[in-house]
Amino acid sequence: MIQKLDIKTREQAEFQEITLKVREIVRDSGVENGVCVVYIPHTTAGIMINEHADPDVVNDILNRLEEMAPRRGEYRHSEGNAAAHIKAALIGSSVTLPITYGELALGTWQGIFFGEFDGPRNRQVLVRISADK
Amino acid sequence: MIQKLDIKTREQAEFQEITLKVREIVRDSGVENGVCVVYIPHTTAGIMINEHADPDVVNDILNRLEEMAPRRGEYRHSEGNAAAHIKAALIGSSVTLPITYGELALGTWQGIFFGEFDGPRNRQVLVRISADK
Amino acid sequence: MIQKLDIKTREQAEFQEITLKVREIVRDSGVENGVCVVYIPHTTAGIMINEHADPDVVNDILNRLEEMAPRRGEYRHSEGNAAAHIKAALIGSSVTLPITYGELALGTWQGIFFGEFDGPRNRQVLVRISADK
Repeated sequence: MIQKLDIKTREQAEFQEITLKVREIVRDSGVENGVCVVYIPHTTAGIMINEHADPDVVNDILNRLEEMAPRRGEYRHSEGNAAAHIKAALIGSSVTLPITYGELALGTWQGIFFGEFDGPRNRQVLVRISADK
Repeated sequence: MIQKLDIKTREQAEFQEITLKVREIVRDSGVENGVCVVYIPHTTAGIMINEHADPDVVNDILNRLEEMAPRRGEYRHSEGNAAAHIKAALIGSSVTLPITYGELALGTWQGIFFGEFDGPRNRQVLVRISADK
Repeated sequence: MIQKLDIKTREQAEFQEITLKVREIVRDSGVENGVCVVYIPHTTAGIMINEHADPDVVNDILNRLEEMAPRRGEYRHSEGNAAAHIKAALIGSSVTLPITYGELALGTWQGIFFGEFDGPRNRQVLVRISADK
């Protein structure tokens, strides 16, 4: 089973939490035990699991990624968004989570974050759920 | 099928090998062909596959991560462990491995390492195994 | 179902696109809906999804990884390839992609790249496909 989420990012770079949306898809699926893959079909965006309690955490991550791959650094790619591709490579294009008792096996502090590195844009997220036999 | 591993880390930051424990769960499952997801329900820890023969390898990785996100750098998050969240974001919260002939499809030099970035602590690892039809 | 791909890298470090080879395996499998895991059984190589239209993009990523973990930096591991292990840790050893309508759910600009960080070498890639029930 695969579902598509439409995401609207508002900043040039941001982590937008999508935990509730993914959780809703898991609940609607009725799957008790299985696995959930959240997949990003973009090359200047990524997906990450990290702390959702204090928004400063994901902002610290964003700032550090910006130091690792500065937006206005020197790159060969001529479209001006090479840094966004590098950030996407470091963060990754999918996360995989177990489903147990009908819920994502997220830890207490964990949230799922869409990472926008070349926004603002309209984006898509694919959520695939499979059930154990 | 999902199993929980209890991990006790001993350092502020360390990579602790858990290959044997995961392998044991795979063998006990009796699954011949399938997939194994190792999932970390924490936001200041991660999971990685890398060389297990020479312990210097994972220490080099740890040292480089410390340069990328120094523990005593400047961050907004006020709990003092922002660097640990950044390291977790770079390393990732799950690894996915094929199971073939009843064993993890690990390469000769590969081991599975729990990455502690804000220890020492008691931690958990979720190991989910699914069989092909 | 698991298939092995043989890859021959030509540079000390390169991203080699393997999208067509993985797509062929997916088509041959006949799976309409499911998931594809591409797994690297090496510790100085990785796998990444990123832009395949402009080769400068993956070269920019490679250059930035080289700045993050310089080949001739100071490391404890004595084999001279510590930097390659660090790059592999940052890029990761597997990617997971949904299969829908018999095809990989890759976005328009996405390709699958084998990351060589200690070549040139003969390498292997494992491609595992599972079908939804």
